[in-house]
Amino acid sequence: MKELEYLEIINKTISDSSLLGDDCAFLKNYDLCITQDTLVEGVHFLLETTDPYTLAQKAVNVNFSDLAAAGAEPLYITISLSLPQNTEKKFVEDFYKGVEKAVSKCGAKVAGGDLTRADKVYISICAIGKKYNSVQVSRTNAKPGDIIALTGMHGSSAGGLKLLLQGRKEPEMLINKHLLPSARIEQSRIIMQTALDSNVKHIAMMDSSDGLGDALYKLSTGCGYLFDIDFSSIPVDEQLKTAFPDEWKDLLMWGGEDFELVFCIDKTAFEKLDKTKFHKIGTVSANPITKEIESVLKQEFENKSFKHF
Amino acid sequence: MKELEYLEIINKTISDSSLLGDDCAFLKNYDLCITQDTLVEGVHFLLETTDPYTLAQKAVNVNFSDLAAAGAEPLYITISLSLPQNTEKKFVEDFYKGVEKAVSKCGAKVAGGDLTRADKVYISICAIGKKYNSVQVSRTNAKPGDIIALTGMHGSSAGGLKLLLQGRKEPEMLINKHLLPSARIEQSRIIMQTALDSNVKHIAMMDSSDGLGDALYKLSTGCGYLFDIDFSSIPVDEQLKTAFPDEWKDLLMWGGEDFELVFCIDKTAFEKLDKTKFHKIGTVSANPITKEIESVLKQEFENKSFKHF
Repeated sequence: MKELEYLEIINKTISDSSLLGDDCAFLKNYDLCITQDTLVEGVHFLLETTDPYTLAQKAVNVNFSDLAAAGAEPLYITISLSLPQNTEKKFVEDFYKGVEKAVSKCGAKVAGGDLTRADKVYISICAIGKKYNSVQVSRTNAKPGDIIALTGMHGSSAGGLKLLLQGRKEPEMLINKHLLPSARIEQSRIIMQTALDSNVKHIAMMDSSDGLGDALYKLSTGCGYLFDIDFSSIPVDEQLKTAFPDEWKDLLMWGGEDFELVFCIDKTAFEKLDKTKFHKIGTVSANPITKEIESVLKQEFENKSFKHF
Repeated sequence: MKELEYLEIINKTISDSSLLGDDCAFLKNYDLCITQDTLVEGVHFLLETTDPYTLAQKAVNVNFSDLAAAGAEPLYITISLSLPQNTEKKFVEDFYKGVEKAVSKCGAKVAGGDLTRADKVYISICAIGKKYNSVQVSRTNAKPGDIIALTGMHGSSAGGLKLLLQGRKEPEMLINKHLLPSARIEQSRIIMQTALDSNVKHIAMMDSSDGLGDALYKLSTGCGYLFDIDFSSIPVDEQLKTAFPDEWKDLLMWGGEDFELVFCIDKTAFEKLDKTKFHKIGTVSANPITKEIESVLKQEFENKSFKHF
């Protein structure tokens, strides 16, 4: 059974699924966004290729990336850490030093959690953030004519993971992008402020945790219009091309965990963004996605998408 | 290494630990309480002795119990569910039916979460609640003269677990208390309202998730005064006495997971509570806990306390 099928079951079973579907749930009455993401040893990371200090920072940033995708500033996290019996004191110490580094970097606070025993290391973090402003953000907000843009390069993290699994230590930049991704908090703030300044009330945005292709698929089917993408304009790390001459295109589109922002925004707002930091890769077309196209896209997507599950 | 030692490391490593220490963190600016608790297969439950529908309700109630202990009403939860590959569709369906039952019972909503793969079933839930009123609740708020009281019987859940592990199916009441505990949400609301009506501004409260003895130890060392407990007044299920004639006293004090509320409240407020529902078991003495006493208590506590870890 595939993740999508499980998610369909969840959506059907929960009577009020209005808060599900985006990177975060938006708690309207409180102007807060909430998200929870989990990293499991052996599925999302290997203790042989990382260390607790780095791992903790990644676990926090995975959640902060969801907040960034919702246009929200991180305020609080809770952490549930499960550890094998007899885990060394130093592991716990280093892990929480990493947590401290990641949260203090953006002025957030640790608001509890728990510690339990388990066979493997298991990290579940819940993050709460405050919307930067009233601009509405969701995966379904794109409209024809919007500019499709990215905050950075893709494929690097998946390339880094491949290198690690091959026992290689270079290029370091790719490996670091995998081990120590950084949530695009500052970029989210800029996008949200620029939208507000341009009187743009809705933007479509998500993070590329499951790959660029996944994000484009979800944003496109979310709004119901086809995306015109200029593939040559997608920024790509030259080191990725060199390290993986045959695979880089696949990594670029379908590798996950780059934690960049993928967004669709009105042209008037995009014009005001710094083009060295926000990369246009296409426009939302006026061609609606027909049922036929959707079924082809879905199949294509399910074959290629990045899977932990 | 023991859980307490890990917790000490965490408190030392996190620079701002002001939000740690109670069942929930209180987010003052939002009047919200937040908590996260995890259940791990093989540590907190066995799939042989429960089912996904029951398990989900327990996982939600474990978190709602923390909210009740903080004097807060459940509003939202996020759920991270990790499952072995090829888990059946019915498991996911039944699990979320259980979630739906537990949240809808008190008008709370599911606000997202994630689904990941793992070797075993892991359930991590983050719950957010709203304080009933301005009465301050913490583990350190007890004062000499306060009445120490409970919302229900203890030891039943631990007795139920013992029965399950012995393959027994009766007494059913004990087994049900273990498999399907109910957070004391309504009782929390009554305690908070009675405190407010009595002009009592602070109460000490926690849940007995780790056992009655644990709760009394933490509330007593939290305020720095010894507790005068009348052990004969602690309510106990007759079926527990019958099923475990030699062990019931131990189960009563040190068995965990009853998820009752243990609280210390000014006498004027306690007088107004329904004595059939809120059971006085002692008073907070005026004798401070000296360093000598504390070290004896700590040792005693560490030997006896209920441990998952």
